[in-house]
Amino acid sequence: MSVLVVGTVAFDSIETPSGSVERVLGGSASYFALGASFFAPVRIVGVIGEDFPQDYLDLFTQRGVDIEGIKRERGETFHWRGRYHEDINVRDTIELHLNVLAGFEPQLPDNYRDAEYVFLGNIDPLMQLEVLNQIRHMKLVICDTMDYWIRESPEELKKVLQRIEMLVINDSEARLLSGYSNIVQAARAILRMGPKMVLIKRGEYGVLQFSDSSVFATPAYPLEEVFDPTGAGDSFAGGLMGQLARSGDLSQGSLRRAIVYGSVVASFTVEDFGVKRLTDTSLPEIEDRYQKFVRLTDFHS
Amino acid sequence: MSVLVVGTVAFDSIETPSGSVERVLGGSASYFALGASFFAPVRIVGVIGEDFPQDYLDLFTQRGVDIEGIKRERGETFHWRGRYHEDINVRDTIELHLNVLAGFEPQLPDNYRDAEYVFLGNIDPLMQLEVLNQIRHMKLVICDTMDYWIRESPEELKKVLQRIEMLVINDSEARLLSGYSNIVQAARAILRMGPKMVLIKRGEYGVLQFSDSSVFATPAYPLEEVFDPTGAGDSFAGGLMGQLARSGDLSQGSLRRAIVYGSVVASFTVEDFGVKRLTDTSLPEIEDRYQKFVRLTDFHS
Repeated sequence: MSVLVVGTVAFDSIETPSGSVERVLGGSASYFALGASFFAPVRIVGVIGEDFPQDYLDLFTQRGVDIEGIKRERGETFHWRGRYHEDINVRDTIELHLNVLAGFEPQLPDNYRDAEYVFLGNIDPLMQLEVLNQIRHMKLVICDTMDYWIRESPEELKKVLQRIEMLVINDSEARLLSGYSNIVQAARAILRMGPKMVLIKRGEYGVLQFSDSSVFATPAYPLEEVFDPTGAGDSFAGGLMGQLARSGDLSQGSLRRAIVYGSVVASFTVEDFGVKRLTDTSLPEIEDRYQKFVRLTDFHS
Repeated sequence: MSVLVVGTVAFDSIETPSGSVERVLGGSASYFALGASFFAPVRIVGVIGEDFPQDYLDLFTQRGVDIEGIKRERGETFHWRGRYHEDINVRDTIELHLNVLAGFEPQLPDNYRDAEYVFLGNIDPLMQLEVLNQIRHMKLVICDTMDYWIRESPEELKKVLQRIEMLVINDSEARLLSGYSNIVQAARAILRMGPKMVLIKRGEYGVLQFSDSSVFATPAYPLEEVFDPTGAGDSFAGGLMGQLARSGDLSQGSLRRAIVYGSVVASFTVEDFGVKRLTDTSLPEIEDRYQKFVRLTDFHS
């Protein structure tokens, strides 16, 4: 089963305590697509400018990512510049140039409209709704968002929440969206807004997943070095949804295993700058780290 | 097998966003002893003042805690006053009166000297060494410490570290002790100081345990309400060591299960002020929550 993602395709300029890079491939759709591509064919919807290099497009196609849905517009590609603190969990946005993203109206190619596994990356909730309106019958829709949309477009976001199965969100965003500081209460409040599941990303501390009938908690894979946390959340979601599409199984047990696959994919992402480590790894290496994760968390045997 | 703890027996005055209490039973040895008492007989070594009420001593004996090692001295009992922020992970010490603790020289009753399971609560490393010198042959020594001793008594602390099996420490203390900001590197550096295992407490995010040959990561039990985090870490250590003494099994699998028991005990502790919830619960309730914890973290079935 193939996976559809809509989100940003960007240039990222990143500074971390370990070094810096200029105008590397970034964006929520890019990280998601590469993370999912180990498990399933991926279709990507996004916009780029005239300055976007063919090499980056080739990177997608080499990994089975269908780029027919990437539109090239006149102007420059979306560009984000960020700096991470000594405490790698904290980052500042130094520059943000929307460029061609400003006028983006997602248009799905005809052969994308039967997509069953859909990820709505962190973009304007209005665009997320437009995408949902173009798809015929979805099996699973997962959505991401951020503090900006929670503050600026709460009504549109609420409409999105009523049409998705799972919201993937970090803990501070969950608190902002719900108004609760306790994370369990925050998750319960978000479930009342519509989604059947809410998944709280806690960075290096792992993930909490809530539904009406179940809670799942899992740590993150401990790493000796985190070079660049950019894209961890989106590649996590990519691994999660890719694995679900690969298995075709949406049971609670399968969802939990997919969350662990997502965590494993994200653990590779942060081991180097940008998408470098994510594109250097392989499915056997991911499966191997999944087994390490099993041993890391096992207290039964 | 019985468990020996040395640490503080105190009055705590606590303010949290949920309310406040004055001069309730507190201290590292108290929380540890009560947490361990569900699983094994406990012997406690500490000091109290003339103002310490018989009721609190009775609370210990009713739970199978041998209080022969609690010395009553002239003067007042150690008193801590703290205030928790809206973000319950942050607290300020408002008052700290050492009182009788200032001149404390731990003296083990003769029948304590064959203790096999020993917990050195967070006190002066010199006192921790004195206790070790009075015990004949230990099977397992776990030690706690804090930023104050890491800064003020690094040499004495290093001597302690060479004589224990496991250091239990929170993440900021692990960073301070090791000089590494990455928690995996911090743990590896602490292992090089002597202990065979280091256990990093991350509060609501769970626990990481490191040895030369193994890493174990587990989340904390998610709670809808945290009334008072005081004593969570010490009752965690109590549950951990109590379960190890109950099982008599120091294999890696047994250690991991004991860590989960410790997490479960701590999850009760924080559900009310002081030791209230911890003394209201029962072993069947703990076993029940342990099974919930198994389901919370399971991604195999």
